[in-house]
Amino acid sequence: MPGTPHLEGSNDYLYRELAGRIAAAMRSGTLRVGDRIASVRRLSSQYSVSISTAVQALRYLENQRLIEARPKSGFFVAAQPRELPEPAPSHPPASARYVVTPPLLRDYIEALTLPGMVRLGVLLPEPSMFPVERLGRLLAATTRRHPELAIVHHNYESGAEPLRRAIARRSLDCGVRVSADEVVVTGGCLEAITLALRTIARAGDAIALESPAYFPLLQNIESLGLKALEIPTHPRTGLSVDALDLATQKPGAVRALLIVPTYSNPLGSSMPEENRKRLVALCAERDVAIIEDDVYGEVAFEGPRPRPLKAWDETGNVLLCSSFGKTVAPALRIGWILPGRHQRAIELLKLAHTMFTPQAPQLALAEFVANGGYDHHLRRLRAALREQARKMRETITAHFPAGARITRPSGGYVMWIELPPGIDAVDLFHRARAAGVLIAPGPLFTSTNRFRNCIRLSFAHTWTRTIEDAVARVGRIARELDSQR
Amino acid sequence: MPGTPHLEGSNDYLYRELAGRIAAAMRSGTLRVGDRIASVRRLSSQYSVSISTAVQALRYLENQRLIEARPKSGFFVAAQPRELPEPAPSHPPASARYVVTPPLLRDYIEALTLPGMVRLGVLLPEPSMFPVERLGRLLAATTRRHPELAIVHHNYESGAEPLRRAIARRSLDCGVRVSADEVVVTGGCLEAITLALRTIARAGDAIALESPAYFPLLQNIESLGLKALEIPTHPRTGLSVDALDLATQKPGAVRALLIVPTYSNPLGSSMPEENRKRLVALCAERDVAIIEDDVYGEVAFEGPRPRPLKAWDETGNVLLCSSFGKTVAPALRIGWILPGRHQRAIELLKLAHTMFTPQAPQLALAEFVANGGYDHHLRRLRAALREQARKMRETITAHFPAGARITRPSGGYVMWIELPPGIDAVDLFHRARAAGVLIAPGPLFTSTNRFRNCIRLSFAHTWTRTIEDAVARVGRIARELDSQR
Repeated sequence: MPGTPHLEGSNDYLYRELAGRIAAAMRSGTLRVGDRIASVRRLSSQYSVSISTAVQALRYLENQRLIEARPKSGFFVAAQPRELPEPAPSHPPASARYVVTPPLLRDYIEALTLPGMVRLGVLLPEPSMFPVERLGRLLAATTRRHPELAIVHHNYESGAEPLRRAIARRSLDCGVRVSADEVVVTGGCLEAITLALRTIARAGDAIALESPAYFPLLQNIESLGLKALEIPTHPRTGLSVDALDLATQKPGAVRALLIVPTYSNPLGSSMPEENRKRLVALCAERDVAIIEDDVYGEVAFEGPRPRPLKAWDETGNVLLCSSFGKTVAPALRIGWILPGRHQRAIELLKLAHTMFTPQAPQLALAEFVANGGYDHHLRRLRAALREQARKMRETITAHFPAGARITRPSGGYVMWIELPPGIDAVDLFHRARAAGVLIAPGPLFTSTNRFRNCIRLSFAHTWTRTIEDAVARVGRIARELDSQR
Repeated sequence: MPGTPHLEGSNDYLYRELAGRIAAAMRSGTLRVGDRIASVRRLSSQYSVSISTAVQALRYLENQRLIEARPKSGFFVAAQPRELPEPAPSHPPASARYVVTPPLLRDYIEALTLPGMVRLGVLLPEPSMFPVERLGRLLAATTRRHPELAIVHHNYESGAEPLRRAIARRSLDCGVRVSADEVVVTGGCLEAITLALRTIARAGDAIALESPAYFPLLQNIESLGLKALEIPTHPRTGLSVDALDLATQKPGAVRALLIVPTYSNPLGSSMPEENRKRLVALCAERDVAIIEDDVYGEVAFEGPRPRPLKAWDETGNVLLCSSFGKTVAPALRIGWILPGRHQRAIELLKLAHTMFTPQAPQLALAEFVANGGYDHHLRRLRAALREQARKMRETITAHFPAGARITRPSGGYVMWIELPPGIDAVDLFHRARAAGVLIAPGPLFTSTNRFRNCIRLSFAHTWTRTIEDAVARVGRIARELDSQR
């Protein structure tokens, strides 16, 4: 088994780190189906972990059906069900261009408001996955105790102090060294990203981003008069640093990189650490600002939470944008930015942009993160997402046409499906909508009209028969389209 | 007495309308100090109002010290205390130019966070002026009853339905005919304005605006790569329609007009109806979009609430932006836009901008506006502002150097003071700050480094000895600077 002994990290995560190492050995082929896994005692001494940690790691792998117990013989690598292969890396055109929002986006947004749709394409988490009662009580109590904060008082200090402290502390846990003074609270992650783009770029500048990319990022680039330069992206390892290296050789060719390095939306890709380190150094050297969207970082459901790019930032060149929208409270719209050396400019623009972010929700969140069982909740959320992702992958594998490919995210909320060439995802979108299911068609996620045979599905939804039927229905429609080719 | 008989408007406001007519006759010189006011019976028949409305109007004028009763003789125009004259209309350069935020703005923003300052320059309303307890209870109750709305659920429908209905109903009351479907809820008025600018203008376009103008508007113009064209503005009647007519003669010279026609910030000016009507027609004819900031419209404290420009809009060319921030709840950050023919584009951009506006505060506000005594609260707020404006004007008149000029807003939160030429407002700002008082220096409110002898003061604060002393202190420092010239 590869990897250095002596695992690092908090005790809570040690077993997942160990499980991740074993799973990686399976993926790389070092461990094959039927191979015996080292004993608990052996794992314990090899990785310097306790016996109970080794047991936990094996149980975790067993729950994921990656290993199976054989009576009196220990654990063995399990045979995997048929798995669809990964899509190929993307190959966008090499030039930056202005974005024009396709009419398709209006169709998609309108479909969001249709009643009775199963919204498979949408990252719309369910109340049962979030601490609704607990946080609702905290918020009501904060409002009752400090109505003047909820109703009248602004804060001129870039956010409520307790929340900024909580964010700084959590940042430290994943390798980002900031103090509370370096945190600016925003109205969700999107406001943070908009502020970053407006601060760093001027109309006509080129912004590099992953391809495919989350469409609101493209819309922001469009409406600010910027150009988008889509960079080849791997479905598992994310943005190609080599391609970015090439694209940024001419000074000033790219003003900033806007990137979701961890569990990207829509691919679900996550960059390996060595790529992250190299990317941060490259961008610092080339004077390309990094706007990092880390909004999915905390929902790692296989292996430990990856460190954000900001963890390697030594020059203040990385602006980390995130929020509580994907972890605790989508509707509160509370996010933040760690703006590095652009802090003063961001603070000033925030005042002109939306002035202030309401304080009462900030205080309730701070209380929840500090004392309300945030970690306990995250563990539950991760377990739910892991299970939902597995079930969705299985259902897609069973029902989608042969030749389909699918990403294998180890965190986040979405997966990306490449259908056999010739199946038109926009056609599929319209037919699925008529059948009561909303999917997100691939061309939404590019400025260059590609991904015409791709779709995004979200496993944000609690797994029910309704969801399973909807996935199967989309698969059936795709098979019909496939047979008509 | 001039004016047509047969007053229009709801019964509630009839007496203020009548009082406004009488006050206008005094301002124009038709009625002079010592002149006798027509009897109650005479007013009643002349204006077709009830006796009690006429009595109310006279009482209102007496409370404002504009008329005084003499035993057995009726009411007479009162002698007015010494009043400082109005500033002259502004004369900005005639060309559009890119905005560069002055370093002074950072000094100003930093001073906002200093503890123990009397923030005279800042529109920072006090809890006692807002329905803190009542709305706080409604908000806590909404959160308890619908924690899933507060914590998790998005609304894709551009805002919570009950709030959009309440906004549409209030709009009708001031002559703006819209349905709930035509309202888009935003995170405060500034988000509405930013969305409007981003939807309508592209980098390099010129935006016309009042001069002086509220500095966050200038910041937004700067960071979107737009040019600002400042238009001559009268301290009482607002933007010069003649000047705008001249500036827009070349097609495409001006993309949009960004204007606060009612109780402008910082002047406090308010456009007469005939100017409003002409402005709307002119801009429709010239294809110049109007972005109307109506955030102070409801805080009319002398005379009836002026109708917004949007009331004359027949082509969907006016985007009315407003919020509850200046009337009910500054900290909730709930505003709206009536986007006219740009609605679809605004809705789409809103999703990419901040995605959603939280629902629970919207529902609490809707309840307060529909059933919570919104009008009762507005009457209290207007009375407080009227009294605070009067006291601030008196204190300024008593303590500021001879030659100072001052605007006379009939609504809103701010007044604008022109000091004798040669007194440097930035110097005054620094000295006042050292003496514990924050004022807003004039050069913040322009892109062309003018208004160097002007300051903005706000009467948002409950009038106390501390406030009075602070105003007097600024006056004393100004007199010192004046004597050193």
